[in-house]
Amino acid sequence: MDPDAVAKAFVDHYYSTFDANRAGLGNLYQEGSMLTFEGQKIQGSQSIVAKLTSLPFQQCKHNITTVDCQPSGAGGVLVFVSGTLQLSGEQHALKFSQMFHLMPTPQGSFYVLNDIFRLNYA
Amino acid sequence: MDPDAVAKAFVDHYYSTFDANRAGLGNLYQEGSMLTFEGQKIQGSQSIVAKLTSLPFQQCKHNITTVDCQPSGAGGVLVFVSGTLQLSGEQHALKFSQMFHLMPTPQGSFYVLNDIFRLNYA
Repeated sequence: MDPDAVAKAFVDHYYSTFDANRAGLGNLYQEGSMLTFEGQKIQGSQSIVAKLTSLPFQQCKHNITTVDCQPSGAGGVLVFVSGTLQLSGEQHALKFSQMFHLMPTPQGSFYVLNDIFRLNYA
Repeated sequence: MDPDAVAKAFVDHYYSTFDANRAGLGNLYQEGSMLTFEGQKIQGSQSIVAKLTSLPFQQCKHNITTVDCQPSGAGGVLVFVSGTLQLSGEQHALKFSQMFHLMPTPQGSFYVLNDIFRLNYA
């Protein structure tokens, strides 16, 4: 298992899916998964997708600035991302930081156990 | 185990120790610990402390803006921090984001298994 390859593949998939079809992110989470979005804690795949699809913008585009990763033990991978989020109709992009804790599935893939997102206000 | 209480106590201790005596951070890490500092990966308590104590500033002051935490499985706690770093002699504070993965020790305390630090350039 190459954590860098896992992190890169995950980041590409996650943000391209987010920008194209947020509802498609549901299968990356499981019942025990937790999202903390701007301080609000949400548990479980269904609630997390409901939160992500209810965010008050239609179109967005993530641009990734940095991706760091480390093995977290027990086959897991920590992924730490910084970048900008451009919302349609907004002049300025928003800076954000986000971390994911990926855990292996029995099928040889990964799911998101932990997800913490914060905007970085300038 | 209350992850919020663990995260708050850790953040208070970590940054006050960093600002007062960086060399004192060594006992928070173990041999399997990893720090990624601005993209550079450093493994093991001794190497991590050598990196932190060699940073090119004498005095600094962290101000914490947000602390988020989640249980990570196996008794671990993920802590996600944003804030600013004021270096002595510099007019403007630097914005940063940092994440820690804390794991329990047999003695009932926690050590830092994973630590990822990034400056957030404006």
